[in-house]
Amino acid sequence: MTKGDLTRQRIVAEAAPIFNKRGFEGTSMSELMSATGLQKGGIYRHFKNKEELAVASFEHAWNLAARQRWLEIDKKVSSVDQLKQFVANFMEKRAGLVAGGCPVLNTAVDADDGNPALRERARSALTLWIRRLSRTVRAGITKGEIRQDADPQQTAAVIISVLEGALMMSRLQGSEKPLEHARAHLNKFLESLRAY
Amino acid sequence: MTKGDLTRQRIVAEAAPIFNKRGFEGTSMSELMSATGLQKGGIYRHFKNKEELAVASFEHAWNLAARQRWLEIDKKVSSVDQLKQFVANFMEKRAGLVAGGCPVLNTAVDADDGNPALRERARSALTLWIRRLSRTVRAGITKGEIRQDADPQQTAAVIISVLEGALMMSRLQGSEKPLEHARAHLNKFLESLRAY
Repeated sequence: MTKGDLTRQRIVAEAAPIFNKRGFEGTSMSELMSATGLQKGGIYRHFKNKEELAVASFEHAWNLAARQRWLEIDKKVSSVDQLKQFVANFMEKRAGLVAGGCPVLNTAVDADDGNPALRERARSALTLWIRRLSRTVRAGITKGEIRQDADPQQTAAVIISVLEGALMMSRLQGSEKPLEHARAHLNKFLESLRAY
Repeated sequence: MTKGDLTRQRIVAEAAPIFNKRGFEGTSMSELMSATGLQKGGIYRHFKNKEELAVASFEHAWNLAARQRWLEIDKKVSSVDQLKQFVANFMEKRAGLVAGGCPVLNTAVDADDGNPALRERARSALTLWIRRLSRTVRAGITKGEIRQDADPQQTAAVIISVLEGALMMSRLQGSEKPLEHARAHLNKFLESLRAY
């Protein structure tokens, strides 16, 4: 890695929590300058514009979140247990994440009527997330662990909806309660998919 | 109503979709001026500052959404059917709403690390929403329509999480699919609460 690459990486790591907390429009040049300790010219030597920095910040925040959420999944043998581990990770493995909540939720709400490049990145991330969960469900059906009548797409969409909606509620209320309700509900739902 | 009240009301109605779509920081004075056809001084004759206008806009957007979501609920006799009607309304009764999606979701994400006055309004709206749904569940338990072991708070939190999370996904993907998955899941879940 060149010195330039390292500086770029450092700028992204310091800009990511600002974009994740304040949104694209809400992030000001002065906040970015004070977080990175660089002048405007120093930042934009590495990025074409604010949008390019915001996109890199989203990717950084999302990669960290995705890594945490898929931890220890492979250690579980049964597909139902893998899905339950995913739900547990979403709630528990929050150390080291970029501050400000789930980057997909934040960017989705921030960019659904706004920045098209950011919306596109959030949309891709969501699509891959749905695909990975629905693949787990499909594998479970094939292996005879999950009921034949389970709908992989619907199961994936429900898991993500419940978690993201509950995260929004928990952050707004400053209480873990909605996330705990979400976990109890999803664990019961996932158990109901077991084939036996 | 005085002429001033009418103007105030008109400004709020025209500002609400801008705040709901773009967020507090993303809403610029020039957009507000062009939407209302007023100069800055004309707008701020009726509002102390941008925050007061944003709060009034949130209240306006939320009142319209809440009214639609509780339509025809009273016509249903059973509590389970009332909750199912609520889910149906969330998806179907979107005519006349302020553009940009659910005001509670938008304001929660926009303001969770931002404007405290707005966050407070979104938090109150969410609290009342949870209370009203959990009251319906509690009434159902008392009347013997809903199982004794149903948890009113958890049921309310799950309904809201699923709907808000699915709305986020649907808006991001430009597809009704996640909301349809949410409805199918919630209807099945609510049926499972029936006491018989």
